[in-house]
This record gives sequence, C-alpha cells and structure tokens, in this order.
Amino acid sequence: MLALYELCTYPIIQAPMAGGATTAELVAAVSNAGGLGSLAAPLLTPLAIIEQAEHIRRLSDKPFSINLFVQTRPHVDFATLEAAKLLLQPVLSELGWDSLPTPTRWSEDFEAQLDALITARPAVASFTFDVLHGSQMQRLHDAGILVIGSATNLQEAIVWQALGADAVCLQGVEAGGHRGTFIGAQQDSTLSTLALLQQCVPHMQVPLIAAGGIMDGRDIAAMLAAGARWVQMGTAFLSCKESGIHPVYKQRLLDASSGTTRQTRAFSGRYARGLDNRFMQLMAPVADRVPAYPVQNALTGSIRSHAAKENNPELMSLWAGQGVARCRDLGAAELVAALVAEWQACQ
Amino acid sequence: MLALYELCTYPIIQAPMAGGATTAELVAAVSNAGGLGSLAAPLLTPLAIIEQAEHIRRLSDKPFSINLFVQTRPHVDFATLEAAKLLLQPVLSELGWDSLPTPTRWSEDFEAQLDALITARPAVASFTFDVLHGSQMQRLHDAGILVIGSATNLQEAIVWQALGADAVCLQGVEAGGHRGTFIGAQQDSTLSTLALLQQCVPHMQVPLIAAGGIMDGRDIAAMLAAGARWVQMGTAFLSCKESGIHPVYKQRLLDASSGTTRQTRAFSGRYARGLDNRFMQLMAPVADRVPAYPVQNALTGSIRSHAAKENNPELMSLWAGQGVARCRDLGAAELVAALVAEWQACQ
Repeated sequence: MLALYELCTYPIIQAPMAGGATTAELVAAVSNAGGLGSLAAPLLTPLAIIEQAEHIRRLSDKPFSINLFVQTRPHVDFATLEAAKLLLQPVLSELGWDSLPTPTRWSEDFEAQLDALITARPAVASFTFDVLHGSQMQRLHDAGILVIGSATNLQEAIVWQALGADAVCLQGVEAGGHRGTFIGAQQDSTLSTLALLQQCVPHMQVPLIAAGGIMDGRDIAAMLAAGARWVQMGTAFLSCKESGIHPVYKQRLLDASSGTTRQTRAFSGRYARGLDNRFMQLMAPVADRVPAYPVQNALTGSIRSHAAKENNPELMSLWAGQGVARCRDLGAAELVAALVAEWQACQ
Repeated sequence: MLALYELCTYPIIQAPMAGGATTAELVAAVSNAGGLGSLAAPLLTPLAIIEQAEHIRRLSDKPFSINLFVQTRPHVDFATLEAAKLLLQPVLSELGWDSLPTPTRWSEDFEAQLDALITARPAVASFTFDVLHGSQMQRLHDAGILVIGSATNLQEAIVWQALGADAVCLQGVEAGGHRGTFIGAQQDSTLSTLALLQQCVPHMQVPLIAAGGIMDGRDIAAMLAAGARWVQMGTAFLSCKESGIHPVYKQRLLDASSGTTRQTRAFSGRYARGLDNRFMQLMAPVADRVPAYPVQNALTGSIRSHAAKENNPELMSLWAGQGVARCRDLGAAELVAALVAEWQACQ
C-alpha cells in the first residue's frame, strides 16, 4: 500500500462535494494535473459508485479518492414528518404548492455503498459525518485502500487516529457545505481551519489535511507552514468548468464579490455553509427545529429539483465556503497549475 | 443522568455473557445484592431484548446493564461456506453426520437490536467487538443511558474515551469468552488485566473497569488498588445457581481444579477462551482458517445445540477465564456478599 504522499505530485486534494459537482471529468482532471481528485459518492447508489469509478479510470490512470457519509438507517416517524412539512410551509407558499410529496427513500444504505466502494477499489477513501467501525476500517485496509477521516474538533481527530486512519482531514468553520461533526453539537465545533490545525498538531502523529477557506497558493503555503501535509479545496473547484453544478449556481459563485456565507440546517438537517438566498431567509426562524439529516434533506429534495428545473437559485442549496469571493472561472487543470505556481512563489 | 458510580453499592459488575448464562434471575439477583447485573443480548432478537428487560424489572427495581456486540452485516459467499464445512469434517465424522445444515441466519441485525435496547432503556449499555458510530453514542446519551465501551488494548480505550464513553472496560487476556478486539489482530492484544490497566491509567480520564481473571475479594482489592474504579466478573457468576448455562457445563466449571483454559477461533471465528475439550482438540489444526465471526459461530450452532441435547460437554463451547479453578457453587446474592466481605477484609 502506497503512503498517501506518494499518490500525487502536489499536496492538493480536490474536496468531495456531494450533489453533482464532482463529475468524473473533474476528478480525472485534478488527478491528471498532479492533485488528488475525489468523487463524492454519498448520494450515489452502489451501482453508480462502481460506474463512476470506471468512468474516472477511462479518463485517468492516476490515483483518486471516493468519499462517503458514514450513516446508519434513519428513524422516521409520521409525527416528525408532518411537523417538518409544516415548517416548510413558507417555502411551499412561495412555490404555490399545496403539499410536499413524501420521499420514497431517505438515504442510500451505507453498508451497501461501502461494499461498492471496496469493489471499486480507489487508492483512497474518505469519510465524513461519523467515524467508521473498526471492522470497516480493517476491510478497507485489507483491500489496500488508504483511509482519510474527517474531523471538526480535536476529539474527532483523536478517534480517527486511534482507529488507524492514514490521514485526518481537519474541516475548519470556513468550509462550504456540510459540517462533518460527530462528537458534540455541530454548532459547538466552530474553530477556524488554522485554529483547529494548531490545536491538533501537538496531539497527532498521522498526517493532517487542512480544509476550509483555502482558495489560492498563499493559503496553501500558510496551511503547510502551520503543520498541514496537504490542503483540501472544495469551493475553489466548484466553479471550475468540469464541475457538474447547475450553471446558475456556478454563476452565483463567480459573482460572489462579498464572500458572505452562512450556516443553516434548513436544507438538510445538518449544518452546512452556503450563499444566503430566499430559502435560507424563509426558513431562518425554524431552521433549528427541522428534523436531522437525512430526513430534512430528502424532504427538501423535490423543492431543490424544482428550483433547478426553473433555473431559480433562490430555492437551491448554494453551498460555498468563506473564500467564495476568490472563485475563478478556469478548467481544473489550469486551476491546479495556477495554485502550484502561486504556492511555489511563496516558498 | 446518574454517574455510573451512583448506580450500585459495590464496585462489582456481573459481566454480560452471551449464550444463555445471564438469565433475568441472575441479573436481578446481582443488582438486588448491590452489584450491577448485565443482560447479554448479542444473540437475542430485538423483541427478546425488550421482554428480558421487562422480566428483569419484575424482579428488581435496581439499575442494570444490557450488552451488545457491535456488528455490521456479515459477508458470506458460497466458496467460504463450503470450505468452512470441510474444515469441520473431523467433528462431523465424530458425530456420524454426513453434512452440516447451512444456517438460515448469521447474526441479529445490530441496528435493530440497538433500537430495542434504547426502547428498553436500561441505566447502562455496554458494547464489545467494535466501537459505536458517534451518532449511536449520541442516541444512547440522549436516552439517558450510560455507555461502557470494551477495550483490549490502549488504542481501543482511547477511541472509546474520545467518543464519549462513560467508562471503559479493560478486558485482560485472562478473560473467558470472546476477545473484544477491534483494532489490530485479536492475537496481538495479549496484555493481562493488570498490565492493560497499568498501561491505560496514565492516558485515561474516564473511569476504568477491570475484567479478566477476577474471582475473589482479593482480586477486587488488587484491581482497585491499581487504578480500576470497578471490576467486571464473568466466570465467577457463570457457576452461580441463577446462571442459565447447561448443567454439565456448570459442573465442568465447578470441577475445574487446574484452571487450564485456552483461546480458540474454532467455535465462532473470533478468539475466545474456554476449557479445553474434544471440539477444540479436533479443530486445533485448522482453527486459524475458519471464517470470521459470525459465520463460523452460526455454522457450529447445530453442533453445539446437538451436544447440549446429548449432555455432551465435549462438543459444547465451555467458555471460562483463567480463574476458573476458583468457581463457587453459590447463589448470586451469596457470591456478591462473599466478594464484598473478602474485599473489605483486604482494606
């Protein structure tokens, strides 16, 4: 099994971003350019995971990563569901909808996704939302797959390290998209990327990956100087040409001059950071009362799909990190080249 | 939520022992006598877990614990199964059986068992074979249930502590029954109870429970002196009148003057310590090649059931710890009283 640092030329990981951004073209382009591309598979069926991995391999012979959310079966009861639908009433009124369809599926089966990931056998697998069981870690290692665990606080980093993770990705509060917190309340893990890195360095022997707010070569130089071995960048790759997000969402990223983002539970039931929009404003008064992920996420699915069809960014989830104002309109290979040039200019 | 030390008068936990030993009568008798009784639920259906908890509550109003094996869905393929049946051929020949029935079920569904445990709402839940996901720990704590994690090495103890366990039970190599190892190879976690305790004490802030080879009040005094907050005793309670094990197994325990036990994978696919018998001898040459728990355990189920019907201890699993020579023929309340008297005499 190769060590993680042997997998790619540059210490740059393209973050997995569930929801269509991480096309095979994006993942392959990043890996081909000397970074580590990551396929976000949390919302993919087991079959789609295998198909996407094959697609990436047709475009690149370089190592890549596959990411999953660690989840158990959700508990859904009728009363919770009805209450959750009521909380969404302001959005339904805006849409002119009388009712919200009940989803037929809440989330993919994690154990089946993990089986598919092991069958697909990427060089690296990364996990967020929770820690693996030890037996699952063992199966990945037996298959020769390196494991990256995601942590938003020191305790989580210690758990992943003790369980045998090959690297730990530290997600600072600047990061776009979902918080990965699994120990303590999500709203309590508020350290910035640099503060979290500094807190973890003295306690960690495994290599650390810094994630959250990293947009250019100067950020990379700063994080490596502070003790990270790699950086993981999401928002920076979200606006790339190969990114599969909706065109109006991509345009919002490129237009975001202020970098104003906020965290909300309203879309999915887990805290996640994105650009402010009408959905977040309408739901702000009740966002703390919506059911936990994945129930709220499944419930709002039809709203978000509808908004996508209507090209209406106001009711989409516009995940973005605090560095969004520095998004660039480039191909992924060009972005990696620019990042490396900027980083090396700082050395 | 009460702290663990407020739950019982004496620092004595009756160990959960899967396979019928921990009757409601045993659990209730221990808790009524001032210890903490534990229901072993790993082999129970979700409904049986709830029924057993109700049965215990009819016999005692004291706190008790419920234990589960943390397991994922087993992976069973035809080739593994056929190979495993071949390895059992020496035992089948001894029985005069032409073939071994394929089990219809490999193990209980852990997530459904956990749901039942949370419904049953014991004061304490303990877990072995693996660590919980963080979300599962959170659900237990939200239900007001204290969590004990089991560890056979320092790394495992660190994982449980960082994940928020209320206490960690350290299982030394002397312990009877299954090894709980989930980080590293089972055969590599070989520290004795005292050695493991000494290794863990400097790294642990949560209270520690010592388990393995503890049979009398002098053992209790020794473990508490070395830094344990409680002891957990299995074999000592296995020979009690309320213990539900087969009478010939119980007699073997009471007759075991030498204390000779050994570890084997042959019965279940996980290392476990028990009294030597014909099954262990017949399987010794191939014990390292049998499939992992729970496949081998399910496969040998019909053999062990048959042996029980025939009152033949030679083909049963006779789990016992290294202290087995000091088993006593007492009721559980008498045993607790004797242990307390012996322990207090050492103070």
